[in-house]
Amino acid sequence: MNFQPTLPLAPFGDAALQSQVQAALDAKTKPRGSLGRIEALALQLALIQNRAVPRLRDPQLLVFAADHGIAAQGVSAYPAEVTKQMVLNMLAGGAAVSVLARQHGLALTVADCGVAAPFEPHERLVNLKVAGAERGSADASLGAAMRSAQCEAAIEQGRRLVASLPGNVLLLGEMGIGNSSAAALLMTRLTGEPLAVCAGRGTGLDDAGLAHKRSVLQRALAANAEAVSPLQALAALGGLEIAAMTGAVQQAAAEGRVIVVDGFITTAAVAVAAALQPALLQRCVFAHRSHESGHARWLQVLCVQPLFDLELRLGEGSGAALAWPLLESACRLLAEMASFESAGVSGRSM
Amino acid sequence: MNFQPTLPLAPFGDAALQSQVQAALDAKTKPRGSLGRIEALALQLALIQNRAVPRLRDPQLLVFAADHGIAAQGVSAYPAEVTKQMVLNMLAGGAAVSVLARQHGLALTVADCGVAAPFEPHERLVNLKVAGAERGSADASLGAAMRSAQCEAAIEQGRRLVASLPGNVLLLGEMGIGNSSAAALLMTRLTGEPLAVCAGRGTGLDDAGLAHKRSVLQRALAANAEAVSPLQALAALGGLEIAAMTGAVQQAAAEGRVIVVDGFITTAAVAVAAALQPALLQRCVFAHRSHESGHARWLQVLCVQPLFDLELRLGEGSGAALAWPLLESACRLLAEMASFESAGVSGRSM
Repeated sequence: MNFQPTLPLAPFGDAALQSQVQAALDAKTKPRGSLGRIEALALQLALIQNRAVPRLRDPQLLVFAADHGIAAQGVSAYPAEVTKQMVLNMLAGGAAVSVLARQHGLALTVADCGVAAPFEPHERLVNLKVAGAERGSADASLGAAMRSAQCEAAIEQGRRLVASLPGNVLLLGEMGIGNSSAAALLMTRLTGEPLAVCAGRGTGLDDAGLAHKRSVLQRALAANAEAVSPLQALAALGGLEIAAMTGAVQQAAAEGRVIVVDGFITTAAVAVAAALQPALLQRCVFAHRSHESGHARWLQVLCVQPLFDLELRLGEGSGAALAWPLLESACRLLAEMASFESAGVSGRSM
Repeated sequence: MNFQPTLPLAPFGDAALQSQVQAALDAKTKPRGSLGRIEALALQLALIQNRAVPRLRDPQLLVFAADHGIAAQGVSAYPAEVTKQMVLNMLAGGAAVSVLARQHGLALTVADCGVAAPFEPHERLVNLKVAGAERGSADASLGAAMRSAQCEAAIEQGRRLVASLPGNVLLLGEMGIGNSSAAALLMTRLTGEPLAVCAGRGTGLDDAGLAHKRSVLQRALAANAEAVSPLQALAALGGLEIAAMTGAVQQAAAEGRVIVVDGFITTAAVAVAAALQPALLQRCVFAHRSHESGHARWLQVLCVQPLFDLELRLGEGSGAALAWPLLESACRLLAEMASFESAGVSGRSM
């Protein structure tokens, strides 16, 4: 079967639905607009679901995990074996994202897109490996991180995973030592912003580590100078988990699922998908502005506004999980608040 | 019994406890500090509860309601009868705060501190009226809003209410047509900032309404020029619900309860209590920066940082309720996350 670079998007609410939902919000017992961003969120959720009263069910938090050849160049504060260790920690319930998923009743699944080590089977772990049982992506500082066919296979895997899951919300998470480097490379190539803006401290590099990371990334850009289209850039500079996540985002948008974006790495996958299909962005709720230095600028370039800024820089989907109750609140307020008329409350006197 | 202006504060965690909690946070399976403000929140909750692993139980959302004589001067976009109507709406479950309290399992109580109309008994409504069965505060543009004895009685009522409730968290909410005027007057008197900074659009005044509101408030400041101490200012310029809330905050701090502050009006009560007892501020979690124009500046003057800014300007405790899951997350992450050692995860390699 030929690879399809994009999937048709599900219908998005039209102007008539927008007016209907706005009128419903304005009739609620509160001054117009006084719930601020929560009202805008309720409207967005209604438009994504193409219905006047949105309902969120069976939210799926997917953590896409993979290793990165470029980690061998010393671009992360942590050794590469941490990717596998943290996947096991997530499955055992001890990672931040595990705790938050438990708190909010989010179904947590870890997708092994290319962790450079084998796993025992686990009910919350799915195998999406396309580069071999113990292989991550290649070292982008020496050439392409993925061959084009590998990248397409990873995208297809991400699509199939989402298609197999229940519910109508996808919350994005990721794990992969070195993946802030891959995301920074993608940001530079897709936005034209310099590495000084795109490449930050990741999990905690010091000044010398950051300078070294930037020099390694500069070599990666030079080694992949011909990768200019979004999919070429994804293959050459991205990573297996970012490719699978790009496919997952496409599938979610094709099905009309709400997409909740976490931090810098998940934004990379969304940015690739949006470069191919800009209308996909309105299906995305950006949970937070992360502390990773390039994230604020990337959100600006995409013209999107996150819900909050809690100075997070963990990844895993932790910010998406922290934002989840706000989505539930938006739906409940729209569904359950009384109107001025139904509650017998007087309107404005001036 | 003589009125006590302040109550002794519960013990607050010392430097040894702070080091212990910080070490526990740093041992968790995440880069140090990567949960940003959530880590700072976990530490604050531990210090308030004076224990290494804070636990939140039976959170109480109290909505303090009262009418304001100054509303007769046309300082609000809504007529004064809305105070009673919205109290009934809250009790019936149709207000925003009702919806959010249901979502998060927060016990919601409405305290009638001086709504200018009588109520039928209701299990979630408590009568804290001190100015008569159908009386709010007097018109501050003509003289003192409350007599000193009334203000003290309202404070005592707020203290007694909190003392009677279970749990260890107090979430603050309020309802009262005209109360953004009272809060603006208190802000001006307590901080010295001009009315142009302190007085905003409230529930939605237009430019002409705002100009009129500021001229009325200017008269109120002149009519109460001699009220300079925090308690004198509270009586002369505040309102019955703000006075009761000030007492509630004092009682909560005396018992070591966590105090979750909502928007501009609840900040006024906290600011009065903090003017009397600055150390009380560390017991307060500021949920959000509201869209009411003076709030951002007041938070700056108090040197406190809110968790988020969702452009809310509703009051009722809606912002405090929206922030509640973040407090739960902070406690759960501290209690439930694995450590590097327990999970067998490698530490930094550089």
